[in-house]
Amino acid sequence: MTTFPNRRLLMLPGPTNVPDRIANAMIRPMINHRSETFTALLRDMTEKSKQLFQTGDDVVILTASGTGGVEAAVWNLVRPGDRVVVPVMGEFSTRLAEAIELAGGETVRVTAEAGTVPSIEQIEEAVRKTAGLKAVFMVHNETSTGCAVPYLEEVGRLASDAGAFFAVDAVSSLGGYAIPVDKWGIDICVTGSQKCLAAPPGLTLLSISKRAAEYIRKSPPKVRYFDLARQLEFLAHGETPFTPAVSLYYALDEALDWLIEEGLEKRVERHALHARTFYSVIAGMDLNGVAAEGVRSNTVIAVLYPHGVDDKVFRKKLSDEHDIVVGGGVGSLKGRSFRIGSMGDVSSAHVHRTTAAMALTLNKMGHPVDLQTIGGILDRAS
Amino acid sequence: MTTFPNRRLLMLPGPTNVPDRIANAMIRPMINHRSETFTALLRDMTEKSKQLFQTGDDVVILTASGTGGVEAAVWNLVRPGDRVVVPVMGEFSTRLAEAIELAGGETVRVTAEAGTVPSIEQIEEAVRKTAGLKAVFMVHNETSTGCAVPYLEEVGRLASDAGAFFAVDAVSSLGGYAIPVDKWGIDICVTGSQKCLAAPPGLTLLSISKRAAEYIRKSPPKVRYFDLARQLEFLAHGETPFTPAVSLYYALDEALDWLIEEGLEKRVERHALHARTFYSVIAGMDLNGVAAEGVRSNTVIAVLYPHGVDDKVFRKKLSDEHDIVVGGGVGSLKGRSFRIGSMGDVSSAHVHRTTAAMALTLNKMGHPVDLQTIGGILDRAS
Repeated sequence: MTTFPNRRLLMLPGPTNVPDRIANAMIRPMINHRSETFTALLRDMTEKSKQLFQTGDDVVILTASGTGGVEAAVWNLVRPGDRVVVPVMGEFSTRLAEAIELAGGETVRVTAEAGTVPSIEQIEEAVRKTAGLKAVFMVHNETSTGCAVPYLEEVGRLASDAGAFFAVDAVSSLGGYAIPVDKWGIDICVTGSQKCLAAPPGLTLLSISKRAAEYIRKSPPKVRYFDLARQLEFLAHGETPFTPAVSLYYALDEALDWLIEEGLEKRVERHALHARTFYSVIAGMDLNGVAAEGVRSNTVIAVLYPHGVDDKVFRKKLSDEHDIVVGGGVGSLKGRSFRIGSMGDVSSAHVHRTTAAMALTLNKMGHPVDLQTIGGILDRAS
Repeated sequence: MTTFPNRRLLMLPGPTNVPDRIANAMIRPMINHRSETFTALLRDMTEKSKQLFQTGDDVVILTASGTGGVEAAVWNLVRPGDRVVVPVMGEFSTRLAEAIELAGGETVRVTAEAGTVPSIEQIEEAVRKTAGLKAVFMVHNETSTGCAVPYLEEVGRLASDAGAFFAVDAVSSLGGYAIPVDKWGIDICVTGSQKCLAAPPGLTLLSISKRAAEYIRKSPPKVRYFDLARQLEFLAHGETPFTPAVSLYYALDEALDWLIEEGLEKRVERHALHARTFYSVIAGMDLNGVAAEGVRSNTVIAVLYPHGVDDKVFRKKLSDEHDIVVGGGVGSLKGRSFRIGSMGDVSSAHVHRTTAAMALTLNKMGHPVDLQTIGGILDRAS
């Protein structure tokens, strides 16, 4: 028997806080996934998802994590020997490059140091120099460093000019950013249920362009569960090929309703506003962000610890004394940084509570924070 | 906005009825999947799952459907060119053979007509004749025809003697049958959350023998999300490599508690008892089962329609007039049969309600059923 703590404020880069209306949707009665009711639900969810991706093409929902969704994109577009340009600037873009190589692709990695992203010129050069380029695969928001690339649209153009596919991992960003996939020429864009959508984890959503769909149908992948041609074939009849996680569909349905009530534009503004406040707060606390100016993420705020503040102690105090959970560092940043997920249900109240807990904890741990200054920052932000 | 019907009795071969205690567990507060709380939960669930599989080895829980779990078994044990013996006797065993071929395996199919299973002698012959046999993959309970193979233990011995792996798809049977994987020499056994465990769909459980684990570690598969070596590596530290469907873990945790409270032996007896009653009832209604005597499933009762009874009308009447959902036929049996899922939370009350609805509906549809006879059968069964 596992003992569960009090409900904590999850300021994590996923899973994020799940509002009651979304969590409670999970206990709707179980239904047959081969029924008119499920078909109506799936069709409705698909239409709402299209608004999120701003696409007139199809959106497929898979029972898997975001990493599963990204791997599905890889297996469906990459065949052994295919050349793929992939910017690498942290843990999740490294995972992406590895997944492409596992599937038999040859990657042309365009690397950047943690905290930065490659320049568009570097990517352009890689695209130009790669003969027979099959695809550009790109992480939009590198969750491990809190960096978001500002030039998806330009990469879409480069890929299109090169006759290559363009796939984007927007797992931790879509909804916190607007990514109009049709306009920007994104063939497959992947996101997850547990980030800016504020639903529980376990579902991944993929937009699929007509061009990509046609290719996959003609050249189906070797994987079955993640075969997007099969998914699209069943979706056309309002079904999923395999038993979906019905309860999570209920929750995501409710989460999509909330998104549409709020409006995508307002949701993006809300994420941008709270991220700006967090960046002002960390500056006011004399802390350094991991991400360079100009590529700082709207959804993941990665912060370097000041000298003498221990990662484990800091996060344990935040959790035990303030019931707030932030993420640890990843990869080379492990122990040297923490990450605030500011996504999904995030509000001023969340920002204030997190800021207060950070300030009090840092003060206790020997990194002085002037509460007056921080109060002023929060006051000006609201 | 999707309109949901009243809560219906799901007599489906999955998803099955989810008891309130299991459904309600899903709304426990969301937690960090990188936390002591999640680790405690995962360790506890793993131990309970080991009792289900009767194994001292590891059990991995993946966020995916049962088909996803079976595909994971395939990619982890089969390499291009490997020879695999696979009995084929319906839709799900065909899917299994196809998944093996997609992964590059060469299948030696041992086929049997729908409603029967290959004889153990046929399988023995295939195993003996296949030089360099890598594995035997087998569906235990063919959900499309309601046939269960009665000789898993013997096949385990044959595979072991041939130095081959033995993998079993027990998605729709484990819990309704006892399958002691260590004793029977099963290297990977796969089941799903939404069948005999009565949890919502979306999770699949795989037992992995030491021998299989060692092989996979030395020769990791090309798939990442389903890489069992990676899963085992993280499990050793009480984690999952990718974000798990936390809410579904909560539900499965509660479902495993219920399993252990009831006891595996009693759960198997309960499934056998209700299946026997259903088979007596269909005989009493002058209906024919799909499955041959001796291989009739404890969990899926497939029934051939009598002359003149239309599949769609029959199932619609059951649903609209009695709020009972049964499954349709699959593959060559589509339109000619229906399938009663008798698994998970199934009780005498469910059997009685389903039987009454079937009897009244068949009477209305021109296939006379003697209610006195049926009442007698139910009376003797209880």
